Formats: sequence, structure tokens, C-alpha cells
Amino acid sequence: MRWSQLYAPTLRQDPADAEAASHRLLVRAGFVRQLMAGHYSLLPLAVRVRAKVIQVIREEMTRIGAQEFILPAMHPADLWRRTGRWDAMGEEMFRLTDRRGTDLALGMTHEEVIASVAAELGSYRRLPQLWYQFQTKFRDEPRPRSGLIRVREFTMKDSYSLDVDEAGLDRSFALHDEAYRRIFARLGVPAIGVEASSGNMGGSDSVEFMCPSEAGEDLVVRCPSGDYAANVEKAASRLDPVADGPGPPVPERFDTPHARTIEELTRLHDVPAERQVKTLVYVLDDRLALVLMRGDHALVEQKLADATGAVAIRPAHQEEIVAALKAAPGSLGAVTAALPPDHGMTILADEALRGRRDMTTGANVDGVHVRGVDIARDVAVDHWADLREVRAGEPCPRCGAPLEVVDAIEVGHIFKLGYRYTEAMGVRVLGPDGAEITPIMGSYGIGVERAIAAIVEANHDDAGIVWPVGVAPFDVAVVLLNPGDAEVAAVAERVHTALGAAGVDVVLDDRDERPGAKFKDVELIGIPYRVTVGRRGVDAGTVEITARASGETVVVPVDEAAPRLVGLLTA
Amino acid sequence: MRWSQLYAPTLRQDPADAEAASHRLLVRAGFVRQLMAGHYSLLPLAVRVRAKVIQVIREEMTRIGAQEFILPAMHPADLWRRTGRWDAMGEEMFRLTDRRGTDLALGMTHEEVIASVAAELGSYRRLPQLWYQFQTKFRDEPRPRSGLIRVREFTMKDSYSLDVDEAGLDRSFALHDEAYRRIFARLGVPAIGVEASSGNMGGSDSVEFMCPSEAGEDLVVRCPSGDYAANVEKAASRLDPVADGPGPPVPERFDTPHARTIEELTRLHDVPAERQVKTLVYVLDDRLALVLMRGDHALVEQKLADATGAVAIRPAHQEEIVAALKAAPGSLGAVTAALPPDHGMTILADEALRGRRDMTTGANVDGVHVRGVDIARDVAVDHWADLREVRAGEPCPRCGAPLEVVDAIEVGHIFKLGYRYTEAMGVRVLGPDGAEITPIMGSYGIGVERAIAAIVEANHDDAGIVWPVGVAPFDVAVVLLNPGDAEVAAVAERVHTALGAAGVDVVLDDRDERPGAKFKDVELIGIPYRVTVGRRGVDAGTVEITARASGETVVVPVDEAAPRLVGLLTA
Repeated sequence: MRWSQLYAPTLRQDPADAEAASHRLLVRAGFVRQLMAGHYSLLPLAVRVRAKVIQVIREEMTRIGAQEFILPAMHPADLWRRTGRWDAMGEEMFRLTDRRGTDLALGMTHEEVIASVAAELGSYRRLPQLWYQFQTKFRDEPRPRSGLIRVREFTMKDSYSLDVDEAGLDRSFALHDEAYRRIFARLGVPAIGVEASSGNMGGSDSVEFMCPSEAGEDLVVRCPSGDYAANVEKAASRLDPVADGPGPPVPERFDTPHARTIEELTRLHDVPAERQVKTLVYVLDDRLALVLMRGDHALVEQKLADATGAVAIRPAHQEEIVAALKAAPGSLGAVTAALPPDHGMTILADEALRGRRDMTTGANVDGVHVRGVDIARDVAVDHWADLREVRAGEPCPRCGAPLEVVDAIEVGHIFKLGYRYTEAMGVRVLGPDGAEITPIMGSYGIGVERAIAAIVEANHDDAGIVWPVGVAPFDVAVVLLNPGDAEVAAVAERVHTALGAAGVDVVLDDRDERPGAKFKDVELIGIPYRVTVGRRGVDAGTVEITARASGETVVVPVDEAAPRLVGLLTA
Repeated sequence: MRWSQLYAPTLRQDPADAEAASHRLLVRAGFVRQLMAGHYSLLPLAVRVRAKVIQVIREEMTRIGAQEFILPAMHPADLWRRTGRWDAMGEEMFRLTDRRGTDLALGMTHEEVIASVAAELGSYRRLPQLWYQFQTKFRDEPRPRSGLIRVREFTMKDSYSLDVDEAGLDRSFALHDEAYRRIFARLGVPAIGVEASSGNMGGSDSVEFMCPSEAGEDLVVRCPSGDYAANVEKAASRLDPVADGPGPPVPERFDTPHARTIEELTRLHDVPAERQVKTLVYVLDDRLALVLMRGDHALVEQKLADATGAVAIRPAHQEEIVAALKAAPGSLGAVTAALPPDHGMTILADEALRGRRDMTTGANVDGVHVRGVDIARDVAVDHWADLREVRAGEPCPRCGAPLEVVDAIEVGHIFKLGYRYTEAMGVRVLGPDGAEITPIMGSYGIGVERAIAAIVEANHDDAGIVWPVGVAPFDVAVVLLNPGDAEVAAVAERVHTALGAAGVDVVLDDRDERPGAKFKDVELIGIPYRVTVGRRGVDAGTVEITARASGETVVVPVDEAAPRLVGLLTA
């Protein structure tokens, strides 16, 4: 390929609106252009990278015996209604109607469609099946941002396993886990598998693959010893026990006219935050609930969703709170005596409050709190759960070492789904004994364009992108310094041809530009190796090979350039 | 690949709802399954074929210097409003709104998006550009049918050319014309290029690539001599001139109480159809118009659209007609004296009526007609145009030979668009003399899944599909007759391995099925060559090679099977 024929519109300046390195570099180096928020056009360089990333994933899917499908992107609403996700997906699902008024969805994921295809399987002898596709997914993200990291339209490799039983699902899940580790290693993405919430997918276990990055929108809690890693939505820690005194025999009210927050109660009334009970009011699928946290702990809403199975979760509005508790935020509490007798709200409490005594909380009277609260005695907790956000420095639940919390990009997610979808869609096969059984499902996803962004986040420097060999848009750029010099041009052509013949993905920079501009473009775009062909070298029968990652240059005889590069690329 | 690991659910019976051969065979042979009308899941066999078809197209696009993009499938409405197509696309465009209420379209085609990307080009030195993509297109077809032939969601290879001037566009158009001819030849689709209407794409010329087939929804008019072919929407013929007498000096009314149709007027009043004027009332973009045709000719609505530029076209309703003409269909006419003086309707007439005299038409009084009409004298025609449907047997416009009319599938369409999109989107580049110029555009499309259907339509027999080599899901099936016989199995494995090592796409049928069932599946699926490995052959050191297309079988020594097949496949 000749650079003069390549549409690679590099920019001299960083785009003004880009914060994430991958966003900035992919725009500046001419890989992508935004059509509207969350929707990007992939230009030829990005198409080349995407094809190589897809090929890596395809090879690893083939290796575990998966078969490629392509399922429709547009689905009938009825299919989603059968699993209850037509409602559960909320605003994140793009919906439309056709000319006949039929309700349709744009696929965010394909469990329902896969289950409908699987309805034809018929016999356990056709199991297990591992089915995957590369297909455009549409998600109406509330805040598309960071270039390719969070978009509304993207290519997903999604795969699905169908097995006879749980042991089979465990095998299919383990195969994917291994395949994903190989894929991210080959892509140059330093992803780690972490325990994760299954969110609205349901099922028992799930593992996310997380690439630590400042541009990430997720938080990963991990132990430096490597024995524990989890999404903060799921993470636990081993909290130090708190030794409470017995406290007074009954709770005591006291006036707190100027203390409306945990901090004010600490400052004005000398109550440490860890001796306070924070009372939050939430709306879980249209029903009010009280959520109790230790004063110094933060709630993780996903844990609340996972603990309750609620689909739509939001903090209650001020008016809803006042109507239910006759008090405004600032003095709320869940002590039985302070609640309206017919309040009807579920009371959920974080595990860190279990057994605590002599605690302080609001009295449901503005400007009044209660101290000496014994949770077991004074609060009618309906449901205990881990709802707390783990913070850096807390002890690892496995080994007790201080945990780290890092920003990360979710690049993959694998789920043990169980029977939810096959049951809802009525998928039944004949079992070995002639009785019908319901296959068990798993689902597994990698966002292709997000993986590309993660590669860039993990592989760049001040001069631009540093693509790993194998996913770079070109592996080698032959830079011809003097396009007007026929002899030099002929040498560059010879090297270019030799590399092409050796199966190397190579571009010949034949543009009539200054050498400095050409070098900058090669660095910005991130081509792993540059071969520089100039007058002086040709006089000496040599060319230069420069590695993008290290910046090191070696001078080699012209006809050794190609074999040397083949060696470097396959090292 | 082993057949036992392949999900290829062949059916014993034809599906009940399939008329087109491609529909019937692609379902029965386990390539596709319908999710809902117009939306198909591609199963592994179809994914393999699709990948090969895409690769053929990609190679030919690369050969003409085109570069691959991937553009968003979802577009902001504003983009389509700028070219006027937000309205013009009507019900065929899927529309939706996002969570913020922004109007969005699902891309039916990408001229607007391409022009927005091209706005960055900057200089004529970056022209020409040939840009293409493989992307999912969505079209809300009124009648999705015939399996993959007419669907609502499909992969399109769409390409776009941007040139400095018309001569450049002519070159880009010619390059695509050649590329398309090579593509369809390689795919085994006997497509012919025909003159076509440009429809709502606009522009000057367009050529459709048509594959003659009973399953086709288009009609192609062609001369057996090969010098003329056109879509019936565009086709012309050389009509024999009609010699009219002078007729009476003024039109004469006569009573026709029982003649409401062309045929009744002929039968009851002895007026030949070719001496009648048929008066049709149409609504063109909300305005009524009279459309005059010779009595024995049929109107082509697309020609009416092309002649008037109207976007929305429909026959007027009975009430609209009566309100405008004070008469009901059966006695309508456009003679000036019979029209309300302030009727305000445009009168369009087909060219075949030009100069005709002594004609008969309705009097706009129920049960009354007029004869002796001299079109030039008595009818105030506003606009003459070719509106007539060419019929089989009419003379070729080039050579006069009798024309044929055949059903055909449109598999490709190439357009000279002109400046419509670049002007509307404000695409300007600096020209050679420093003044800004507007690039000129072309657009070119192939429907990938429809091309697959066309391959099947053109390549099947009673036993199933007969894929051409190169697009078949597998080129060779090694059928192991006795899976339980270790020695026979080892020979089959050896042949399978040798073929794989030679780069042949091969599947080993290792299933525990009867030989007859295996042979039937290979034939139904349409694998070009079958290698049969059985006990008797192994005893003699031979295997059988059977060609799917001819049914011919040759017996060869085991180790000659692979080289022989490589020879057959590359012949």
C-alpha cells in the first residue's frame, strides 16, 4: 500500500474535546471521526486495526470450538417481553415501531435471540454449543464519552453457551475465561479478571476483564498480593471489628439543631462517624425502602440492586421522604419507635451494622437525633446485605493485606446465566433418558472498539500510539525521504516489495512531504517499525530500521531489511 | 472442521412458506432461520459463505483503489434534513428518538454521512477518493419476502466516489462498473448491467446489475442481440408509428352508458384501444395531476416520479377524482372543453400520444365519451414524457429486434449522483487555482445477503444448492462411511488433513449417520466436491471424488485425492 493512496487525515493539534488518551490519539492520528455523540466513523486505519482485533478474537473462539453466527440487530419486542427485559432494560434500549406499528428493539445483547434459535436443538446430543457473532450493538447510554470507550453503537463479540447441566456450563465458562485471557494478552491489553455483579443479565457468577487505566469508568478493588480482585460494585473487604460498649438501656433523644450531616454531628456533638447510622431512602421498583449504612460508609447502588432484585433504583425525592417519614433528610432514622407504625417500608441494613450498639441516628424529627441505639434491639431490619463501597487500604478479604482501588476499563464480561433465558423462551431438549431437559446458558462479551481504545490507553507515549505487532494498522512503514530521487525511490520500492512478498503488512510513505512530518505521522499513528530510505544510506547500501516502542535505530544493508524485520515481527 | 462439531440443522422437508428456491434451500439446508419477517439469523454455514462473498467484493474494491471505512448505522435526523431526504425517504426509513428526544434514523444508505466525512478533505489533491464499507442497512420494506431477497436488515457493500469533476466521476463510475462485473462473475451470478431509474438517489445516470430469476421482483427489458437492456422502470422501445386520419373538425360527444373500461369501449363501440386516451388521476406530492396514456399502454409509476421529481406518488381516490372532475372513473378525459376552467391540475401525457388525432376519451360526464379528439388541438398538455411500460415483442430502441421482458433480481446498483449531496452538505475543497470547488459524487451498492440468494437462485438443482467454488461454505466434504472402522476413519483423517494442509476449506463428515443421509446433506448444502471414504475403497487403496455440479465420480488412489482436488478447485 502507498501512503499517497491512503486516507489517513492526521491532525497537527489535539482535538479540543478529548480527555482520554485513546480518544485524543485516535482522532488526531486519523483513525476515527465523530458523527454524533456516541457514534463514530471508522476511517481506513481503524478498519485495519478492527479487522485484526476481530481476527484474534475469531481465532481464539475457533480454538475453543465456538461457531460463528450473525443474528439480527433488530428484534421484535415480544421476544424481550418473554424474559421481562422489555421493561427491565429501561431507557438504555433503543426502541422503535415499524410502518405497521409493531414494537421493535435494537439489540443491546442477544440472549433472547440465541434462545429462540436454540429452540430447534431438539436433543442433548447436540449439546454443548458455543455460538458467537460479531454484531453491532446499540445502547442509549446516558453519557456517551471518551471516544470509543463509551459509545451508543459498537461491534460486540458476543458468545453464548448451551449445556446439558451446570458442570457443562462450568466447562464452557472456563473455556471462555481462558480464551479471554489469551485474547487480551495477544491484543496487548493488560486485563485482569475480577469478580463482578451480573446486573440485569441475572445468573450466578460473572467475571469482568478490566484494563487498569485513568480513562476507565469502573473502579476495581484488588489485593497487591494478587489473590483478590473485584469490581467495586461487588467487592468485599475484611473490616476491623468495632468494640461497642453496652450503651444506655433505651435510646436517648437529643437536640441537634445545626447538625444535618454525618460531619456536622461529628463536629458539633462529638459522635464519630463510625458510631452513626446513615439512613437513606430509596425507591426500588416504585416502592420506598430505608437503607442503613454506617456513617463513614458509602452505599453501592448496584449492590442494592443485586441484594433486592430491583430493576429500577433511585434515591427518593425530598417530597417522598417527608411524606413517608414526616421528617426531612438530616434527621432521618429507622429506630422502630421513631417510625410511623404503618410505614410499610422495607428496612435494609449493611452488614457492617450487624450487632452494633450505642449508635446515633436521626429521630425523624427535624433537629433531633437519638443516641444509644442498639441495632438488634431498636431497629426492625428486614434484610441484611453487603451494600458498602470498599475503600483503598481496607484489608483484603482473603489475606488481609491493604486493598488498592484503581480506575479501569471493562473490556470483557462473562456470565453464568443459568436457566433464566432458556426457561423463559421454552427451550427444551430430549435428555439421555428420553425426558425433556432445559439447557443451561452462559453469555460472554467483548466490545471490539472499546478493546481498541484499551489497546491505545495501554500502549502510547507522548509522540502517539505504540500499537503492538499484530493489531497495528501496518506493521512496517517504509519512509522514502527523497521521492524525487529515482534511485532512492527504487530502493524504497524494493524494500516495500520484499516486505509485502514476505507477508508483512507494509505501507510505503511515498508522499512529497518533509522527512520530519513523515516521521511524526509514523510515530503518531504508531506503526511498530519504520524503515528509512534516504540518499546517504543508499550511497552506503543501507537503510535504517527504527522501532517505535524503544526508539532504537539499527542500520542494515538494503537487502537484509526485510528478513531482519520478519524476524523482529515474529519474535 | 468436523461435521460433528458443526451446527448445520438440515431439514427433511421444504419449509411451508418458502416460494423462491433460494429461500427454500437456504432454510432447508440449515443456512438461515427467520427471527421475524425480513430479519434472518445467519447460521454457521451462511456466515462462511457471507465471509467469502465479502472477501471477493473486498478484493475487487481494493483492486480499484477503494479504501474501507465503517460508518455509523444510526444517524442524526439533522443530517438527512440537510439533503431533504428525511422527508423524501418516507415510511421506508426506520426512525426513532433517543432518551433526550433527538430524532434519529437507521441508515438506509450513507451519502449524507460520507459527505459529512468528506467535508474534511480540504484540497483537490486528496481527490479522487473511493470509500467503501460493509455495513448493516435497515429498510422498512412494505413487503419483506422471499427469504434473503427482500429483507429489512442486511449487509450492504456501499461505496462512494468523490472527484474533482465530471470526467473524474466518469472514471470512478467505470471502475465500479468493471469491478461489479468481475465480482458477479466470481460469485457465479449471471448479472447483466441495465439502464435504470435513479429513484430517490437523484443524479444523472445509473446502472443496475440484474440477475435473471423467477424469484426476481424487477422486470428487465432486453434485446436478444445484447445491444440494449434496461429496467422496465426506465426502458424504452421503438413503437410503430400510427397513421391517423384527419378526424372531425371538432370533438363529438356520444353516449356510452355501458362502457366504463378500455375493453368495453372497444367491444361495445368499436373503438380500438390504440385509438383511445386513458385518463389517470394521480396525486403527486399532494397535488392532483392528470396522466394520459394510450388506451393499450400501461403507466410506469417510477417514470412518472422521474419525469416530475415528485417524491410521494399515488393514484387519486374516487372522492378526490369526483371532486376535481365532476365525473367518476370510466368517463374521465382531459379535453379542454370538458374540464372545469379552474381545475389547476398539471396534465402529463405519454410520448406515444404526441400528434395523435381522431382519438376517443371520456367527456367527464358519466356515461359519455368524446371522439375525434386531436391531442394537439383539444388537450392542453403541460408536460410530455415517456411514461409507458415496454412490453415483450416491442422493437428494440437500438436495433428494432423484438424485446424480451424477464424477471430479475437486482444485485447491484451504481449511480452518478452529481453535486446533490456535496452541495447540500457544504463539501468544498481548494481547487488547483486556489478557488474552492465542490466535489462530484457517485454511489455504488451491492446487497451481500441478496447476492447470496442470487447465487443460490442461479446455482441449484433438485437435490439442493450447487455453490460455485470459492463461495461454498466448504469446498470439499470428506464423507467417512464407517466411523466405527478405525482403519477407514484413519484414511478419512489422512485425506482431511492433507486437504487442510493444502489450504482447502474442508469438512470431515464423521457423524454416525447412514451414508445416504450424509450424501443427501452434502448435496443439499451444495459442497462442490465430495470425497467418499469407505471400507471397500480402503481395501483397494482408493477413495471416490464426486463433483456436485455434474454428479460425476472418479476413483483415485488415497494419496492422490488431495492433489487432484487442489487441481479441480483451482481449474
